[in-house]
Formats: sequence, structure tokens, C-alpha cells
Amino acid sequence: MDTDALATRTGTVMAAIRAKLANRALTPGDRLPSIRRLATTMGVSPSTVVEAYDRLAAEGLIRARRGSGFYVAGSGSPPMALAEAGPQRDRAVDPFWVSRQSLDADPKTMKPGCGWLPADWMPMAALRRALRAHARAEDAMLADYGSTRGSPNLRRLLMRRFAEEGLEIPPEQLLLTASGTQAIDLICRFLLTPGDAVLIDDPCYFNFQALLRAHRVRIIGVPYTPSGPDIAAFETVLTTERPRLYITNSALHNPTGATLSPQKAYRVLSAAAQHGLTIVEDDIFVDFEPDPSPRLALLDGLDRVIRIGSFSKTLSASLRCGYIAARGDWIDGLVDLQVATGFGGPSPIAAETVTGVLAGGGYRKHMEELRGRLTRARRDVAARLELLGIRPWLMPRGGFYLWCRLPDGCDSAALARAALDENLVLAPGNVFSVSQTASSFLRINVAQAIDPHVIEALGRAMKVAKTAGSSSASTTA
Amino acid sequence: MDTDALATRTGTVMAAIRAKLANRALTPGDRLPSIRRLATTMGVSPSTVVEAYDRLAAEGLIRARRGSGFYVAGSGSPPMALAEAGPQRDRAVDPFWVSRQSLDADPKTMKPGCGWLPADWMPMAALRRALRAHARAEDAMLADYGSTRGSPNLRRLLMRRFAEEGLEIPPEQLLLTASGTQAIDLICRFLLTPGDAVLIDDPCYFNFQALLRAHRVRIIGVPYTPSGPDIAAFETVLTTERPRLYITNSALHNPTGATLSPQKAYRVLSAAAQHGLTIVEDDIFVDFEPDPSPRLALLDGLDRVIRIGSFSKTLSASLRCGYIAARGDWIDGLVDLQVATGFGGPSPIAAETVTGVLAGGGYRKHMEELRGRLTRARRDVAARLELLGIRPWLMPRGGFYLWCRLPDGCDSAALARAALDENLVLAPGNVFSVSQTASSFLRINVAQAIDPHVIEALGRAMKVAKTAGSSSASTTA
Repeated sequence: MDTDALATRTGTVMAAIRAKLANRALTPGDRLPSIRRLATTMGVSPSTVVEAYDRLAAEGLIRARRGSGFYVAGSGSPPMALAEAGPQRDRAVDPFWVSRQSLDADPKTMKPGCGWLPADWMPMAALRRALRAHARAEDAMLADYGSTRGSPNLRRLLMRRFAEEGLEIPPEQLLLTASGTQAIDLICRFLLTPGDAVLIDDPCYFNFQALLRAHRVRIIGVPYTPSGPDIAAFETVLTTERPRLYITNSALHNPTGATLSPQKAYRVLSAAAQHGLTIVEDDIFVDFEPDPSPRLALLDGLDRVIRIGSFSKTLSASLRCGYIAARGDWIDGLVDLQVATGFGGPSPIAAETVTGVLAGGGYRKHMEELRGRLTRARRDVAARLELLGIRPWLMPRGGFYLWCRLPDGCDSAALARAALDENLVLAPGNVFSVSQTASSFLRINVAQAIDPHVIEALGRAMKVAKTAGSSSASTTA
Repeated sequence: MDTDALATRTGTVMAAIRAKLANRALTPGDRLPSIRRLATTMGVSPSTVVEAYDRLAAEGLIRARRGSGFYVAGSGSPPMALAEAGPQRDRAVDPFWVSRQSLDADPKTMKPGCGWLPADWMPMAALRRALRAHARAEDAMLADYGSTRGSPNLRRLLMRRFAEEGLEIPPEQLLLTASGTQAIDLICRFLLTPGDAVLIDDPCYFNFQALLRAHRVRIIGVPYTPSGPDIAAFETVLTTERPRLYITNSALHNPTGATLSPQKAYRVLSAAAQHGLTIVEDDIFVDFEPDPSPRLALLDGLDRVIRIGSFSKTLSASLRCGYIAARGDWIDGLVDLQVATGFGGPSPIAAETVTGVLAGGGYRKHMEELRGRLTRARRDVAARLELLGIRPWLMPRGGFYLWCRLPDGCDSAALARAALDENLVLAPGNVFSVSQTASSFLRINVAQAIDPHVIEALGRAMKVAKTAGSSSASTTA
């Protein structure tokens, strides 16, 4: 009550000043009444006036000059309205295309091409509960950098989850990072030198390519099959290119939704051991699996496999928190690198929020419901896509992606460009493909495509793209 | 009340299971009673039992097996206690030394060598208020990635603060990052190639050296004077080494606390223009100045100067949020790089918390009080250091550092090692010096040295270091 009354008095003072600005009783450069004088005039306490002036200053209407009071902000100030630069429509359809189009999209844009779930599919109540609890946390957690490896609570919790799978490691083998992507970036900085060869799946998550470009390495693709990488191609490339690193998703491969088979897992690891290859296993989709599939990190026991993951897909992408589980003798080097290049990993507040949600009883139930909801969404969206002649390459065991083949003659890059006019962000096949052989594929996020308007808009974009394609074909003929 | 009653019932069920584990009525591998059965036995609802089991699972005492209930966790699980690896005493006194010793220090360690204020000097009430407000924020802010440039609210606010200084830029020239360090790291990735020459002050913030090592560049130091870099040396090195980048703090230079003079600022910029040098101006201490000192970004208008900063020193280091203000045509490239290597910058929740505190009326008052408190701390700590024969190189206009000269014959690296036995983390001079010519200097954080025990412990460590020094001198003689 007391707080509300104070807020009202502050608001009254602010309104009085705003009125003077509106009727030009005060103009740019004018000094505002002194705090003491206005407090007397308006019958409020000086601290109420200070609060009101500070808030008006924060809004940019007035400015404080140290030691000489407050002044009306000058006319040279930039306009208050923030004109956001929208996603650029003329960008190349390259590995950055989906990120830029979807991250900076207008909230009303439909995004079946994006890589995350709608916010209301996330455990919002648990998130809010964890944030409220933090408002009462110790000063140190809210204000300090935290330890170099990141929250001991979260590392202990991850360690227990790994132990449930059968991977027993001490918390010293875990390093928290600001994201799953940043985890891979740190590993690349740690292990690679420019010019090294790095292996990725073809197709694979487009940002692996974007990231590797930043490391100035040679990027080599290996065809991905429904049961893992094409082993003959994998073994050949290990001999001919001698790659230093292989980056892959084993569980619910992005974009295909495929699952690594036990036989492939064994042969990948054996070949890696023979050629001194290190493997980064990106486990970001693991909680979406109905039951655990073969995992390289588990077979190998974190000898030559590094496990990375994050909480962006199941809990919140706003928290920015990922992890690296690796050989103990590598963690020290990774810690130094993270301190040197970021002075730490995730926000300790974010890490404790993740811990709060994961340790709360509701997370397991949330994931069970999410899996059920996604199973229905995959089925329903696949049925609707079928009507447009778009078919999944395979039906994944879990997750939110369908890797779909378009009807003959439909180019996914042309389709993705046409879709922007339908307010629709798509993920065209070739952004995932090193060899650029996926032009007839599209990755569909079923959770973002459940609204029938999405498939309708996709249908319209297909017609436009087809017409544009045939007319450009006729002009070049 | 309802929630409390529920919590009590859940606690009762948890206590009952714990008791069975303690008296070995349940042992590793045993299946727990079914949810329905235990609910009936204990006279609670099934959801209470689910909640209790989930919490025990989160604690690692029991494990869920999908579709087959809960089991007592196996004896092969790692121990519950988390043995933290402490700071390593035998590490080299190198640019990583202070970070590792201070970030991972026991909470009871005294840290006059660290680079931050004690948590209770931060605006804790405002931070808690902002976090509480976020518990009621929109789903999207709490769960989504946010835009690639970072919170529009925070960028608008920064834009206004810059405009108050006289630097008018649109919000498109601002990019939020996960920290001030990460801001510099992104710029280095954007502008540098391995082998390039990069200029830093000697002495300078130790982490500039650590960071540049990660970029495989040639690190060149320029002597720093009480009014800025030694201009003759600066101009010479621009001719002989043709550096691509110069990284510096203008306001309250770290570690010296010196202030760039207007004449030096002009000559630095002129020389940079003549030789095509880009300058990164790290403005992290700007809010600690009693009044604004010359700023390169302001003179130059962000043409060849890039301004970076963060909120870790004045607001909270736990939030992990920094920024880059740069030429508009560079921001796009920096955005792509941040997406590729981290899939975004700071946590949107963190950025909105920063906005909440900065826009709230109390921040200006907090900083005024902080400046007053630090002025007193600088004076008091300097007086106590004087008794040990330790004297500041200069008395800074603001901030929390004193760059101090030790009495003759006292080596700061030996002192820093001896100090660890006194539970004291120091910042010895040579970690700041590329030329390794600062062995008789020590950087003292006055806010962390206000407790008289700190200076007492420092005095004891000096005696130990002196004895060790003379005995090792006599053995090598």
C-alpha cells in the first residue's frame, strides 16, 4: 500500500512536468525547478521529486547535470521511437539466413523454419517461480561473477542426470557455458587451428557451418542416412582428409530427426579411435526422446567424445545456459579460454534458474506432456503437408522437426524467399547442406506449424515460387 | 496457505521415504511403492506423492525409469558432496593468475587483488525489485532467444545516455553482448587475423593479454603515463609495427586509475587516423568518474573508435551483459559473428534486469553514494598502505583501484604467492605488464581492502616474502 501511494505521488509530479513540456512552459535547455522548491510547491517530499526527475531522465525527457540540477533534454536528441531494422529480405540464402530471419522477425511472423518451441510450450510457471525465489537469494549470487566452472548446484544436478544414463563423472569434468553454441565454439577454439579439417553431417544444423567459418577451417560433409552417417564415406574421409573434429547430433539429429543406430555408433567410435578424431556430440534434443538412443559419449566414457548441451529447447532460450562434459585434463584449458574471452560463462542467476526448474518436481511431467504434444503435432502437420505433396524423409521418434521433401520442381530457396511475402519464415534445405544437394528439402518445426494458417500460407508461397521458377526458366531459355 | 499445506504434505512423504532409506528398509535398486499405493497408505493425494518422488529424484536419492516407476539410486552413483577444486597455488603468476585465484576463491578469502566491488556495495534492492517484476513478464521475454542485437529497451536507454554525453547514434549502432570481455573478443574476431599486431597499454588490464593470446596475434605494449600512453612511443610503434588495433581504457585506466588528457586524446586519434588504426575504448569504469574525462569515442564519433562497456562493476556481474557501439556497417558483421559463435548475446532476462535498474529512479543516487564511499575508501586504504611503505603511483579521480609501488626489494609475485597462505588474493604488477617491468607494483582494490584485517595480512605476507626472497638470494649466491 505504502509503495503504491508513493508511486502515485511520483506519477503526479511526473505528470506535472510532462504538462509543462507539452504546453512549452519548459523548453529544451531550460532548468527544471529545484527539488526543494517543487517539493514545497506540490506538497510532496523531496525524495518523491528526486524519484520523478530520475524517471523522467531515464525516459530521456530531461537530463541531470552533476551539481547543477536537471534540464529539459535538447532538441538534438535522437527520436524516442526505436525503428528496428527488420530482417533483410535480399540476404543470401546461406547458413545465417534462418537465424537472422527468425530471430529478428516481427512477433506476428509465422516461423515454421525456426529452431525453437513457442514460448507457451515452455514450463512458464516453474520459470516464474524460480525467478521469484531469486529475488530473495543471497547478495553474492545476484551480484558476483560466480565460479569459473559455473554453478556447483547445476553441475551436481547434471552429473546426477548423466549418472542415471550410466555416465559417471565428477563435477570437475563439467563446465557451464553461455549456450550450446558457445560450448562448441570454445571447444573449436581449444582444439582447432586455422586450416584444420572438420567433419559435419550433410545435412546438419546450419549454424555448425556458420560457426566453423568463424574458425577458418576446412568444412567437410559426410552424407547422413536414417541410421547415422554413411559409414563408408565417413571412414574414407578420415583417411583422406585427416579431420581433427567431428560435430554431430546423435539423438534426434537436426534437421532430419534420424537416430544413430548402435552399429553405426560403434563403427563411428572405432574409426575415430583409429584416426585420432575427437567428436563433439551435441545432445541438445536428448530430453525429447521417448527412450534413450545410443550415445557416443556413453560408449566412449568421455575419452575422445565431448558432450555438449543446453536448456534452450526444453526450458528457456532466454536464460542462455549450456554445458561441456569432457576429459578432466581438457576442462582446465577450456576454463582459461572462457575466462579470457568472456570472463565467465552463463549468468549465475540464469544457471540457478535452470537448476530451480530442473530440480523442481514438475520438470519430468512437463517433458512427458511435451513429448505427447509433439507426437500429435508431428502426425497432424505431416498429414496437412501431405495435401501439398510435401512428405517427411522419415518419421522421427521425437522432437519437433520434420525433414521434408518438396514436390518435383519446387526449389526450397525460391520457396523460402516467396514465403517472406506470406509473413512466413522457412528453413530451406541447402542452408543445412555443405554439398548444396538439399534444394528440394525443407525443415518444418511442427510446433510452429500447428496453426492451419501456416500450411495455407505455405501452399500460397509454393504457387508463387512455382510461377516465378517457371517464368525465370523461360526467360533464361 | 494452500501452497504451504501442500509443501508440508510433500515434505511428510519425502521424510517417510528418507526414513526407509536410512534404516535400509529400501536399498539401492529397490522399487519404491507405487504412487497410488503410497497415496492411500499415507492419506495424501497421488499428486503429492508424484511431487515428493520427483523432488527425491532431483536430489539423486531415487531414479525414475520411464513406464516402470521409481527405484532407489544405485551405490555406483557419485557421492552427493561436491568437492570443489580450489584455486591452484602452484599456477604461474601470468595474466590468468588473478582471475583464477579470485573467481574460484573461498567466500572467506580476502580479495584486494580482484576486479569487482563487494556484493553489498551493489544496488541490491533495485536488482531484487527488477527480478520480482520479471516473474510477471511476458512469456516471450522469459522463454525466447530475443533479437540478434539484444533488448531494444536497453539499447534505447544506452543511446540516451550516450546522447547526454554528446554522442548521438541510432540504436542500430549498438549491439548487446554477454560481457565487456566478450564485446572485445567479438571485435577481435571481426577485425583481426592471426599474426596481426595489437597495441595495449603497459600496464593494462591483465585479461587484454589473455584474450589476445587466444587470437594468436602479436601483442605490443606502449608505456602508460599519468595522462595516457607515452605519445612518442605510441607514434613510433604505429610506424614500425603497423598494428591493426589498440585496446585501452580512457576513463579511470585499469590498473593505474590514470585519466587520458585532452592533448593525448587528440594525438592518439590523429596518429590512429594517419596509420589506419582502429581503437577499442573500454568504458567499463565511466560511471565511477566524478565528472566526464576526454573520451576517444566522443571526439571521433565512432568512426575508427569502438566503444565497449558493461554493467558488471556498478550493477551486477552475475547478469553478464555488455555492449558494443560501433560504425553501422560493422554491426551487421558483428551480429552474424555473435549468432554463429553463441547464437545470441546476453540473456534477454538479464538485459531487461539491467534496464529495470538503470531506468529506475535510484541508480543515479546509488552511483553518487558509491563514488563518495570510494573516495573515502581510497583515502583510508592509502593511509594504511603508507604505514607498510606502499605508495600509490598516483591518486585516481575515481574508481576502486590504487596502483601501488612496493618498498624496495619487495617482489610482488613472491608477495602474491606468500599472501595465499594468509588467505589473501593479490594482483601482482607483472600480470598487467607486457614488458614484465612492474614487479615492484601491486594493484589494490580499495573496496575489498577496507577491512583492517586485509592490510594486516598484507603486512605479514610482506615479511614472509622478504625473508623467502633474501634466503633464496643467499642460496643462489
